[in-house]
Amino acid sequence: MSDLLAALGDAIGASHVLADRTDLERYETDGRQSGGRALAVLRPASSGEVSAILRLAAEHGATVVPQGARTGLVGAGLADDGGDALILSLDRLARAPEIDVANRTVTADAGVLLSTINAAAGEHGLFLPIDLGADPSVGGMIAANTGGARFLRYGDVRRNLLGLEAVLADGEGTVLELGGALWKNNVGLDLKQLFAGASGSLGVITRATLALQPKPTAQVTALVALRRPEAAAELLALLEARFGMLISAFEGMSAPALDAAFAHVARLKNPFSGAMPPYAVLVELSSGPVLDEDALEAKLGEALADIMACANSPIIDIAIDRRDALWAIRHAIPEGLRASGQVVACDIALRRGDVMRFRAEALGEIGARWPGLTVHDFGHVGDGGLHFNMVWPRANGPLDPAVAAAVHDHVFSKVVEQFGGSFSAEHGIGPRNIRHYARFVPEPARRVAGQIQRIVAPQGLGRVDFGSTSTQEG
Amino acid sequence: MSDLLAALGDAIGASHVLADRTDLERYETDGRQSGGRALAVLRPASSGEVSAILRLAAEHGATVVPQGARTGLVGAGLADDGGDALILSLDRLARAPEIDVANRTVTADAGVLLSTINAAAGEHGLFLPIDLGADPSVGGMIAANTGGARFLRYGDVRRNLLGLEAVLADGEGTVLELGGALWKNNVGLDLKQLFAGASGSLGVITRATLALQPKPTAQVTALVALRRPEAAAELLALLEARFGMLISAFEGMSAPALDAAFAHVARLKNPFSGAMPPYAVLVELSSGPVLDEDALEAKLGEALADIMACANSPIIDIAIDRRDALWAIRHAIPEGLRASGQVVACDIALRRGDVMRFRAEALGEIGARWPGLTVHDFGHVGDGGLHFNMVWPRANGPLDPAVAAAVHDHVFSKVVEQFGGSFSAEHGIGPRNIRHYARFVPEPARRVAGQIQRIVAPQGLGRVDFGSTSTQEG
Repeated sequence: MSDLLAALGDAIGASHVLADRTDLERYETDGRQSGGRALAVLRPASSGEVSAILRLAAEHGATVVPQGARTGLVGAGLADDGGDALILSLDRLARAPEIDVANRTVTADAGVLLSTINAAAGEHGLFLPIDLGADPSVGGMIAANTGGARFLRYGDVRRNLLGLEAVLADGEGTVLELGGALWKNNVGLDLKQLFAGASGSLGVITRATLALQPKPTAQVTALVALRRPEAAAELLALLEARFGMLISAFEGMSAPALDAAFAHVARLKNPFSGAMPPYAVLVELSSGPVLDEDALEAKLGEALADIMACANSPIIDIAIDRRDALWAIRHAIPEGLRASGQVVACDIALRRGDVMRFRAEALGEIGARWPGLTVHDFGHVGDGGLHFNMVWPRANGPLDPAVAAAVHDHVFSKVVEQFGGSFSAEHGIGPRNIRHYARFVPEPARRVAGQIQRIVAPQGLGRVDFGSTSTQEG
Repeated sequence: MSDLLAALGDAIGASHVLADRTDLERYETDGRQSGGRALAVLRPASSGEVSAILRLAAEHGATVVPQGARTGLVGAGLADDGGDALILSLDRLARAPEIDVANRTVTADAGVLLSTINAAAGEHGLFLPIDLGADPSVGGMIAANTGGARFLRYGDVRRNLLGLEAVLADGEGTVLELGGALWKNNVGLDLKQLFAGASGSLGVITRATLALQPKPTAQVTALVALRRPEAAAELLALLEARFGMLISAFEGMSAPALDAAFAHVARLKNPFSGAMPPYAVLVELSSGPVLDEDALEAKLGEALADIMACANSPIIDIAIDRRDALWAIRHAIPEGLRASGQVVACDIALRRGDVMRFRAEALGEIGARWPGLTVHDFGHVGDGGLHFNMVWPRANGPLDPAVAAAVHDHVFSKVVEQFGGSFSAEHGIGPRNIRHYARFVPEPARRVAGQIQRIVAPQGLGRVDFGSTSTQEG
C-alpha cells in the first residue's frame, strides 16, 4: 500500500494524501458521530485529479469512498472498520460557485457548501431551496438526494439538478458530462438521475449545475395546536386548496417531541397558553413582493380563524410569527431528543393520508412491545415524510443494539409491507440501513440496480452494493 | 411469423392481434403524420399480457415497438419501413384512473389519456400540470418526458413522476415495480428515472403514479408587445422577482409566428392596436382563492404599467385577458405555420439568457444561407425552450430533404456547440432525430447509456439505440 500512497502523492501532491492518525480522525465521523477507520484521506483539487486517483486505485485494487461535508446520516461517506479504505474527500474541490442570474442557475464544484451557494445566490435575490438542519456539500447533497422541510414546494435535490460532472470507477477514470445549464433537455437516458441518491457508489460527483428560485421576500409562519393529530391532513387539504404554492412548509410535531424541545433547549419560548397540545403543525407561507408580510399574515390568520370558527374545529390555539421563533421550536426537536436519551431514528414516508393512521397504530405497538421506549415523532407531514423517532431514556441504562434493530425491523416492516411506504424518505442508503434495502426493495429492482452498478462502476466505489441480498445486521 | 401471431392470439385473444392492413393504418401515423409499416398491432389489456408478449417476441426474435396515443413527434412509437415489427399499443390498458385526494396523486394505466386524468382530478380541485397542444397517454408522456407550456412552474413529467410499473424486454418479461405513491422516497438507484425520456426503448411502461397539484381558481394572462426581442429576458427577471411562483407561463412569439397565426386561423382576434410588434410575450399568473382574478389582474397590470412607465421601456402595448383569447393566439401558431408551407421544426433549449442572442444570430445565418426559408420562432422562453421553426412556402415548390437536413445540422450545431444548448428540449429522441443524438451526446455518455440499455433490455425494444454511433440521415 505504500507504493499506492506514493503514487497518489505524485498525482495530487503528497501534502494532500493524509495518513497520520490525528489527521484522519475528522474524516472518520459524520452526522451520526460515528465511523470506521481509513488507511488515508485523499484531497484532490480537480476532476482530473479525481480521475487519476480512481485509475491508481483500480490498478492497486484499493477501495475508494467519496466523502462530502460529513453531514450524512447513513454512513455512506465513511470508511468501514477494515482500515484499508481510501477516503476521497471533495473538500478541496471548492472554487467560488458561478451564479447565472438570467438563467437562475448555479454551477459549483462538489465541495462547495449549501451555505456558500446561498450566500452567493442571495446577492441576486435567488436561493437554492434545500432546507435542512445541516450544511452539506453539493456532491453530498446530490449523492444523498437531500430532501428537507421545503420539499412540499420545491422538491428534493434531484428536482433541482440540471447538470452533473461525474468520474467513473471504470479503471479509466472516465469523466462523464451529463446535462448542462439547461432547464429543458430531453436527449435520451437521463444518466445524471442515477447518480442522485446513489450514495457515492456509482461515480464521484465533481461538479453540478442546480436550479435556483426567486428568494421569497415575505414569509409568515403559524404554529397551530390541534386537538387530535388526525386533523393535520384535513388542515393541509384546506390550506392547499386556499393557498396552493404559497405554502412553503407544513411540518408536524407530536406533544412528546415538543416536550423534549422545551425541556432541553433553554432558548425556546413556549407559545402555547395552556398545556402542550396532542399535536401541532407549523405552516409557512412565503411570497415575492406581490404580497407583503402584512397581507400574508392577514390571509393566513383569516383562513385559520375560519377553520377555528367551525363547529368541532380541531384547532385549539394559533401562534403567528414573521421571524424564526416558531421554526426554532421545530429545529430544536432533534437536539431535545438527543438530550433526552438514546435516539432510535426512523426516517420514513407514507402516503399523506396514511401518516396519522400509521402513527396511531405504531404508537400502540411500540408501547406494548417496548414500554421503555417513548415515541417523539415529528416531520414533514406535508410531503408524507415522518421522523418516527424514539428515545430510550438514560435512566434505563444502555440500549441493547439487538433491541434497536428489532424496533427498526418492526417499524420498517409496518411502513413498507402494511402501508406501501418507504423505510428511507430522505436520508438515502448506506451501510447503516443497507440490510433494510435488501429486505424491502423488490428483488427484480435490486438485480437490475446491481447490474447497472457493475456496468457503471466495475471497479467498485463507496459503501453500497445495490445488488445486495444480505439482510443481516452489519 | 404466423406461428408467432397465433401464439400471441392465444396469449391476449385473437381479436386483439390486428394484422389486416386497414386495421393497421391508424397505428402507423403520429403527431407528424407519417410512419412505417407494421406486421401487426398487439393490444394487451394488462401488464401480465404485456409480459407474455415480450416473452413470445423474444422466443421468436421479433421486434416490438411500444406505442401510446400517437401524439409523439420523433417517431419513437412507430414501426420502421421493414414491415416486420410488432406495434404494442397500450390503448386497452386504460382502467379508470385512481385519484388519491389526500395524497394528491393519481395512479393510472399506461393507456389513460392526460385529458381523462384531468377530468377525474378536476372533480377534486386537482390537476396534472402538463400543458401541451396534444392529448398523450400516461405511458407516452413518461416515455417522451413531455414538457410543455407550464414547465416554468411545474416542471416536466419526470418531475411529477412518483411511481412506475414497467415490463422488461429481458426474455422473461420481468415486471418492475419502482417507487410508489410516495412524494419522498430515497432507497437507492432511482431506476424509474431511466424510463422517463427513454422513448419506450428500455421497457414497456404499463402503469404509473403521478403527483397532482391544486388547480388554480384564478388566472390572468397578458400579451405584452415588445419593441425588441432582447427585452423578454429583462421582463422575465422583473416579473419573477415580483411574482415568484405565481407565474405559470412565460411564452415568446416572434412577429412572423404571430403573422402566420392571424393569417391562417380565422377565429383569432388580433389584440394589437397598431402593426404587429417585433416580438410578443404571453405571461400567465395563476393562484388559488387567496388571490381572485380582480386582484391578480390588478397586480399584473400594475407591474407592467410600472415597467412601461420607465424611460426607454421596451413595452409597446399590453392586452390583458382572464379567459382563453390570448392563449388561443399562442396555440394557433403551429396551425398557422403548417398552413403557410412545409415546416422545418427545431425543438431546442438554451440558457435563458442566451435565447435572444442565439435567435438574432441564427436568423441572420438562415437568411443568408437559405433565403427561401422564413423563421417563425416561438416557444417557452421562460424555461429556455424555443421552437425555432422555419417555413418553406408552398410557392417555392417542394423542399429538398437534403436542404431540410442541412438546416437541422446548422441550427443544432450552433445550439449545442456554440451555446451549450439542447437539440431536443421536450420532444425526446426517436428515429427522426437519432443521428443528432449520435453527433451531440458525448461518446462516454452514449457508451454508458448503450451498456445500460443492453442490461435492462437485452432482447431489444422500440426504435432507439442509445449506444448509437450513426450520424447519417435515416
